[in-house]
Amino acid sequence: MSADFNEMVELFKTELELCQLKPTETMAVLTSGGVLEDYAKAFMEAARMIGANAFQLNLPPANRGISGSFGVTPLTDNRVAVEVLKKADLIIDLVLLLFSKEQLELQNAGKRILLVVEPFDVIKRMFPKPSDKKRVLHAAELMKNAKELRFTNKAGTDVTYKLGQYPFLIEYGFADEPGRWDHLPSGFSAGTPNDGGVEGVVVLDRGDILFPFNRYVQEPVTLTIKDGYVTQIEGGFDAVLMKEYMDSFKDPRAYAISHIGWGLNDRAQWHSLALDSKVFGMDGRSFYGNVLFSLGPNTELGGTNDTQCHLDIPMKNCTLYLDGKLIVQDGEVVIEEMKPE
Amino acid sequence: MSADFNEMVELFKTELELCQLKPTETMAVLTSGGVLEDYAKAFMEAARMIGANAFQLNLPPANRGISGSFGVTPLTDNRVAVEVLKKADLIIDLVLLLFSKEQLELQNAGKRILLVVEPFDVIKRMFPKPSDKKRVLHAAELMKNAKELRFTNKAGTDVTYKLGQYPFLIEYGFADEPGRWDHLPSGFSAGTPNDGGVEGVVVLDRGDILFPFNRYVQEPVTLTIKDGYVTQIEGGFDAVLMKEYMDSFKDPRAYAISHIGWGLNDRAQWHSLALDSKVFGMDGRSFYGNVLFSLGPNTELGGTNDTQCHLDIPMKNCTLYLDGKLIVQDGEVVIEEMKPE
Amino acid sequence: MSADFNEMVELFKTELELCQLKPTETMAVLTSGGVLEDYAKAFMEAARMIGANAFQLNLPPANRGISGSFGVTPLTDNRVAVEVLKKADLIIDLVLLLFSKEQLELQNAGKRILLVVEPFDVIKRMFPKPSDKKRVLHAAELMKNAKELRFTNKAGTDVTYKLGQYPFLIEYGFADEPGRWDHLPSGFSAGTPNDGGVEGVVVLDRGDILFPFNRYVQEPVTLTIKDGYVTQIEGGFDAVLMKEYMDSFKDPRAYAISHIGWGLNDRAQWHSLALDSKVFGMDGRSFYGNVLFSLGPNTELGGTNDTQCHLDIPMKNCTLYLDGKLIVQDGEVVIEEMKPE
Amino acid sequence: MSADFNEMVELFKTELELCQLKPTETMAVLTSGGVLEDYAKAFMEAARMIGANAFQLNLPPANRGISGSFGVTPLTDNRVAVEVLKKADLIIDLVLLLFSKEQLELQNAGKRILLVVEPFDVIKRMFPKPSDKKRVLHAAELMKNAKELRFTNKAGTDVTYKLGQYPFLIEYGFADEPGRWDHLPSGFSAGTPNDGGVEGVVVLDRGDILFPFNRYVQEPVTLTIKDGYVTQIEGGFDAVLMKEYMDSFKDPRAYAISHIGWGLNDRAQWHSLALDSKVFGMDGRSFYGNVLFSLGPNTELGGTNDTQCHLDIPMKNCTLYLDGKLIVQDGEVVIEEMKPE
Amino acid sequence: MSADFNEMVELFKTELELCQLKPTETMAVLTSGGVLEDYAKAFMEAARMIGANAFQLNLPPANRGISGSFGVTPLTDNRVAVEVLKKADLIIDLVLLLFSKEQLELQNAGKRILLVVEPFDVIKRMFPKPSDKKRVLHAAELMKNAKELRFTNKAGTDVTYKLGQYPFLIEYGFADEPGRWDHLPSGFSAGTPNDGGVEGVVVLDRGDILFPFNRYVQEPVTLTIKDGYVTQIEGGFDAVLMKEYMDSFKDPRAYAISHIGWGLNDRAQWHSLALDSKVFGMDGRSFYGNVLFSLGPNTELGGTNDTQCHLDIPMKNCTLYLDGKLIVQDGEVVIEEMKPE
Amino acid sequence: MSADFNEMVELFKTELELCQLKPTETMAVLTSGGVLEDYAKAFMEAARMIGANAFQLNLPPANRGISGSFGVTPLTDNRVAVEVLKKADLIIDLVLLLFSKEQLELQNAGKRILLVVEPFDVIKRMFPKPSDKKRVLHAAELMKNAKELRFTNKAGTDVTYKLGQYPFLIEYGFADEPGRWDHLPSGFSAGTPNDGGVEGVVVLDRGDILFPFNRYVQEPVTLTIKDGYVTQIEGGFDAVLMKEYMDSFKDPRAYAISHIGWGLNDRAQWHSLALDSKVFGMDGRSFYGNVLFSLGPNTELGGTNDTQCHLDIPMKNCTLYLDGKLIVQDGEVVIEEMKPE
Repeated sequence: MSADFNEMVELFKTELELCQLKPTETMAVLTSGGVLEDYAKAFMEAARMIGANAFQLNLPPANRGISGSFGVTPLTDNRVAVEVLKKADLIIDLVLLLFSKEQLELQNAGKRILLVVEPFDVIKRMFPKPSDKKRVLHAAELMKNAKELRFTNKAGTDVTYKLGQYPFLIEYGFADEPGRWDHLPSGFSAGTPNDGGVEGVVVLDRGDILFPFNRYVQEPVTLTIKDGYVTQIEGGFDAVLMKEYMDSFKDPRAYAISHIGWGLNDRAQWHSLALDSKVFGMDGRSFYGNVLFSLGPNTELGGTNDTQCHLDIPMKNCTLYLDGKLIVQDGEVVIEEMKPE
Repeated sequence: MSADFNEMVELFKTELELCQLKPTETMAVLTSGGVLEDYAKAFMEAARMIGANAFQLNLPPANRGISGSFGVTPLTDNRVAVEVLKKADLIIDLVLLLFSKEQLELQNAGKRILLVVEPFDVIKRMFPKPSDKKRVLHAAELMKNAKELRFTNKAGTDVTYKLGQYPFLIEYGFADEPGRWDHLPSGFSAGTPNDGGVEGVVVLDRGDILFPFNRYVQEPVTLTIKDGYVTQIEGGFDAVLMKEYMDSFKDPRAYAISHIGWGLNDRAQWHSLALDSKVFGMDGRSFYGNVLFSLGPNTELGGTNDTQCHLDIPMKNCTLYLDGKLIVQDGEVVIEEMKPE
Repeated sequence: MSADFNEMVELFKTELELCQLKPTETMAVLTSGGVLEDYAKAFMEAARMIGANAFQLNLPPANRGISGSFGVTPLTDNRVAVEVLKKADLIIDLVLLLFSKEQLELQNAGKRILLVVEPFDVIKRMFPKPSDKKRVLHAAELMKNAKELRFTNKAGTDVTYKLGQYPFLIEYGFADEPGRWDHLPSGFSAGTPNDGGVEGVVVLDRGDILFPFNRYVQEPVTLTIKDGYVTQIEGGFDAVLMKEYMDSFKDPRAYAISHIGWGLNDRAQWHSLALDSKVFGMDGRSFYGNVLFSLGPNTELGGTNDTQCHLDIPMKNCTLYLDGKLIVQDGEVVIEEMKPE
Repeated sequence: MSADFNEMVELFKTELELCQLKPTETMAVLTSGGVLEDYAKAFMEAARMIGANAFQLNLPPANRGISGSFGVTPLTDNRVAVEVLKKADLIIDLVLLLFSKEQLELQNAGKRILLVVEPFDVIKRMFPKPSDKKRVLHAAELMKNAKELRFTNKAGTDVTYKLGQYPFLIEYGFADEPGRWDHLPSGFSAGTPNDGGVEGVVVLDRGDILFPFNRYVQEPVTLTIKDGYVTQIEGGFDAVLMKEYMDSFKDPRAYAISHIGWGLNDRAQWHSLALDSKVFGMDGRSFYGNVLFSLGPNTELGGTNDTQCHLDIPMKNCTLYLDGKLIVQDGEVVIEEMKPE
Repeated sequence: MSADFNEMVELFKTELELCQLKPTETMAVLTSGGVLEDYAKAFMEAARMIGANAFQLNLPPANRGISGSFGVTPLTDNRVAVEVLKKADLIIDLVLLLFSKEQLELQNAGKRILLVVEPFDVIKRMFPKPSDKKRVLHAAELMKNAKELRFTNKAGTDVTYKLGQYPFLIEYGFADEPGRWDHLPSGFSAGTPNDGGVEGVVVLDRGDILFPFNRYVQEPVTLTIKDGYVTQIEGGFDAVLMKEYMDSFKDPRAYAISHIGWGLNDRAQWHSLALDSKVFGMDGRSFYGNVLFSLGPNTELGGTNDTQCHLDIPMKNCTLYLDGKLIVQDGEVVIEEMKPE
Repeated sequence: MSADFNEMVELFKTELELCQLKPTETMAVLTSGGVLEDYAKAFMEAARMIGANAFQLNLPPANRGISGSFGVTPLTDNRVAVEVLKKADLIIDLVLLLFSKEQLELQNAGKRILLVVEPFDVIKRMFPKPSDKKRVLHAAELMKNAKELRFTNKAGTDVTYKLGQYPFLIEYGFADEPGRWDHLPSGFSAGTPNDGGVEGVVVLDRGDILFPFNRYVQEPVTLTIKDGYVTQIEGGFDAVLMKEYMDSFKDPRAYAISHIGWGLNDRAQWHSLALDSKVFGMDGRSFYGNVLFSLGPNTELGGTNDTQCHLDIPMKNCTLYLDGKLIVQDGEVVIEEMKPE
């Protein structure tokens, strides 16, 4: 009921406008288990101010079992709920549908979906600008036209991805087109390598970030990669942690290389994780000039690997090429069209 | 989180079973504005225990304007919400859809609807028994076969209703058939007179109840009735209150005679309003042997009077006849089939 | 956490001192179902300030069934809880043990018990003075020495009670002796008539109070009394309400005459019920010069009538005699020793 | 955090604009003891939207003693708090400063003060229109020019007030001029009779309202008035209640006739007290065409009677004259300038 | 009030059944300061479902002074509370009685005590199976029959414990025998070395866990051990942290070697501390195949060292022998009877 | 409302007495946005117990923009609020006015200001003793008389500060003199070097603390310092973190050397950050014998550098000299007058 709530309503109203929510449309807010109730209320009020129809669909919590796995959501095996959401044009997802087949079905039905889970101060700081869209689309365009992506860093990384088999992930922070999913806030594009199409070495350097541990790498970790899979992990404690975690899933596909791309949000901060680690991690995943290296599933981009083990690893100060053309140099984006206004 | 919550879940589970909710079906709970949140949670949990699918649909509050009128609900002008509710088989109504055309539409679509708004101790005390259904249906059957209903009391009431033009209201406390609406808790049947078909005098006696004032009549009030309308109201303060209230709607149809019937719930108590007046009033409307006299709209039973002024007036110790046959004598039901087990 | 809490602690500390709680003793606070949590905390803190040992015993709510009957409490069938309470010297009862056999057992074991359920502003206004004890004991003494109590009022009351068979109720607001029960706040004494020993007529006048309805009588009600039982109730709405309520217990003993006495608390106000009716009613039961007429059980004073129907009816402006000696005249106490300081 | 909060902010923003709050000014909200916290937050937010400076001053609760008397407030004996409030231009009073000398001091210092204590739905329904000001000022003007006010009703009232000694109370619902106090919502004007200048009989009829009992008169009450004082009260229970209450203050000045006037707010409803009695009572005091008869203090309008006993008694269907000129006839205002738009 | 609460009740009911709580018995839940209120309510409800008697004893918070020391509890110096708890058969400890003499007194009086402090998802994941008991008892049996325990790791650990002087700690997650204490969840057995009976070197490796810091060792720490005491601590930051912390107690007995054993709970995860560090740490202490090395007090197992400094240090990948027989090899339990079903 | 609240009130009452709050004075508590509401209430109650006048001033939250910068507070651009606070003698600051010009204005107006933001257990443990004042003043006196401060550590630090240009920071935990600001709890003195007057090398060793990251240095970090500015940062991850953070402000003045001093609070613990990192960090900044090295602004001590980047870095085991005289040796204070009683 504080001024913060009103600030939240105002910002979410702007977001709904970026999402092109019209007075003739319907917005649904999907909630479960009392989580993010304030966000739900603020989105309902923001929709009211726009004059759009709105409803909140509250479902029993998902039974994610002991591991809290991705892909199992309150929509799992809930046909009616999926049909209910299809009544909306824009779906605000406060329950993390990511990696679920129900999300794909909703997107295929033309629904816009916006994931919102970060703390409000992160959303506020990284809030999307209309121009972000153009910059992120440019990145996707570059990747679509490339056959090969290679990146290096001074710690010894040199790895090459074959591209072309799969579509691309485009996150600029608002869901403004039919069937589009996005995450508030974000700001990057990513591609998935062709099956078996990654070779080389990735050396995680001090300061690279390990999600979901929300932890900075303290000592270099060397990953040997063959045929699209990590075959060896060497290093200090961080190497132990990665290995133990990945082994705990008892699934060899946990070692697969997943999507690759670079960050473009200039309001995102590499260092904010050091000030508050209770976040989902969009600062780390989106900061300007990172290379977002990733392990695990690729079903979100059309592949068949649906392992429940997923690590996102934003790396600093890398150099990245597409078909040999320099795109990012030592953590700086060199292409004019992708630089911030 | 108290034991009471578990008691609530258990009772609501029994209610859902009375409503014939099956594991293959879907239950929707309709809420708005944070009201009766504990009921919503208990129904969701009860549905989970039955194994039925369930969702809660939370809508922005209705804009009922300054008068809090019946018939304007969070569903008003909300096509999408109505369609969403049609995904369910059973709808738990915690927002009072009564007298809305959206409720009728949902019933016509075959949905079972259960209204729940009384305090929990009232629900618990008056909780429906399976046998209530048979007794209430018997009352409706008697009315369906009658051409005329007449009732009297010792204060001077003698009034006659023509029946046959309209269908009948049947409330036994659970919604167990497609298209059926009911109210938890209840227990009575009622008919609406033919247009213009009421003549006589009703004298409200001390102790008769005035809803929505949740007040016992203190001194007799004499209502003269012609052609189905009250033409004169005489008496003390209670007469003043009735008249002022009805006049405030500036609608002559507020004076129409509405439904008529008698109460059959032997756990309902005439006197409980004297112990707690913060209720909707199902004790008063349902107590065994009352005559439930009513003024105002008749759209819920197929008529055309949709005035927003509605008074329900349960009367004690009346004598009621159908086509001259004695049904209730001085507040005692005389027909064996309608007596409690 | 407001200043009110500190005021509460201070007042409860004074009360504990009136109850003679010593640093070497133990106080128990009995709670259930989250009711009066602030009182519990304040008593715990007050005991701490006195240096006494203290504990709060929190029990599951009693299952009082549909009628909320007196005598069924969270201690019912809970042997361990009773034993636990016996560890204390003084028991603060926030759950209404009144009329339970467990309360009697605790009193017999020498425990002091203090009932506290009124709103805090009532407690504060009517808070006991040390001198109240002497005045109330004087009233009890007068009754103990009398064979007959008679009272009248201008509305037509003239009724006579035979005394002597049973002990007396003494409430001055603090429990300062082993085995003593009292109610904070209070201020009256009362006796129970000999079995069958009441004859005459009681006419409740306008302004007399009907508990548990927390309602002022609006029109005179005439009660005919024979052999200790009400045999007839005549009057307007209030007569109807009394009769219906008493009949609903389906127990002829509901019509028995119960205790009789007069009020002595000069801070209690007859009119406060008109300003706030959400009270237990110690203002009405205790106001200076009332005659507290009562119907129903007498087990609390050694009798055998344990009907669950209990009405307390404080009457104004009565005249009361003991063995013919004038004690109260037109609502004024005439005995010097019972007048306020 | 609901939509209601935003509606509240919007309405309060309109109110602040009616109060002429400017971006260069400061608004203070005075609170105490956690009461009306949502109103405080909504006013703070509304002031922020206007661009005005704002602060909330939260004080320890007043120690009003056992009687909850008017005139003792959280400002009593709190010099610093009064000085702090003088830093503001407009003071939103959520603690009821009415009848305190600190309120007068703040008014004398040129501060605008707005009292707000009614439930939000009452505020919303009765919300002031700019045109209310003109109509209420017209009423005050008429009284200022009159030497004598007389009113009657069919129950037997015929009483005459001498006017001219004291100023007039003007309440139109917003505080828009330096030193002005008002109450949101309201809508009437009133004058205080000359000392000793009231003679006649007032007969309260069924349906007239007794504040602070928030109760409708059930049977006529006859008040004999001589030299500005009630000398006799006759009638049924209502007469008993009035008399007992007034006597309880042990102050003969409780019987003085206080202000007199008539209601002009056409959105106020006589009958709403029958639907919800938990109100301060501005519906009753302001409804269009009432005569607001009052007993008790007159210090607020410059007199010397500061008795703590105050009854406001809105009467229906009266006829009122100023110097013999008809102003209100049987509860209808007959002067064109005072009729609603 | 969410579905989680019901899941909690169900799981706690199973736990009470594992604890052999009978309908003829009494369960006490010990709470203080509002901590874990939901657990208290769920246990009360679970006991109700079993039909057992139950009470919650809520005490003022312990005054643990500035250091939050073990052993000072809300029972300290509270004779009455201890006596009250003796009324129960099973005590659910939500306040951490561990290392208090009152806990020992209750155990000696035959009370079963169950400590419950972990977050609910940890309890759920690690929830005890009936077969855990047999496996943990087998471990204890092996140690009881051994004179010497030796363990090594690849980082350089080689240390030998003399056994036989003291009894053994047996934690399988439920308290099912008179006088038995257990911790929900757990799963290990441990012995305390004979006085002065530990010699060798322990080298904590990367990934070993330091409780109470809830931190993984980042660089090896070498502990030299003589006559049962650590005499030297060498290494990087972790060595500094251990040494500073242990020195801060100003008690040489902080350096004593405490209990030793190995983990047997196959649902416990070494890595979960990296995902959530706000835990007590039963995952770390119980994971299958760990060696739980410990420093500090041994009074819980009959010794005399009651230093308030206590570190539990679960180590990975160790090899452990009893009288030369291989029990754990490189973190894998080799004895068939202790392997999970 | 728990015993903890009363403990809080007692401790805060002692603090107010240390602050010399007199019954004739006024204390203000400054709050905003609902933060630390319990502290506000406890200070209000503590002032009441002392008999001092008290008020709470609650303001809208500051708009600190995206960076949460120091120096922007709820008082920023709020003239009236500043004037309101000037009505008080002692201001309890619960909103962090540090580095704001409004704080300086209040100090210049002679107001005592006490900042309170640490968790209550930290306040309780580190609570000031009257003797702390003398010891901290002695430290300040030593610095005032010195021209040069030099400190070293075994990791390689050797750095020299020129002193004399600026005043000194004196924090002993209570604000007992007009115009004095202090922080509850604290315990150190610090000086600011002359402009450009720092030369040498600072090597942060393992275990030194990095605020605001609330993190222990894991590997040495070497800072080269020339003309009062850090010119080079070398080391492992901690060096990266510092550099990235400081660069993010895009302000070369972030690299300036700020205040220097040593800790004197013997109840502060270096290791407590390892047990709870959700603190402001007064343990780290004040522990006995630390050297508190700092980077960033110096406006609080009269300088002109108002960069928003501020790092406090308490270092362990340093040796510090003033004009060549040994003051602290390897983390031990050697001057008798500064040792704890």
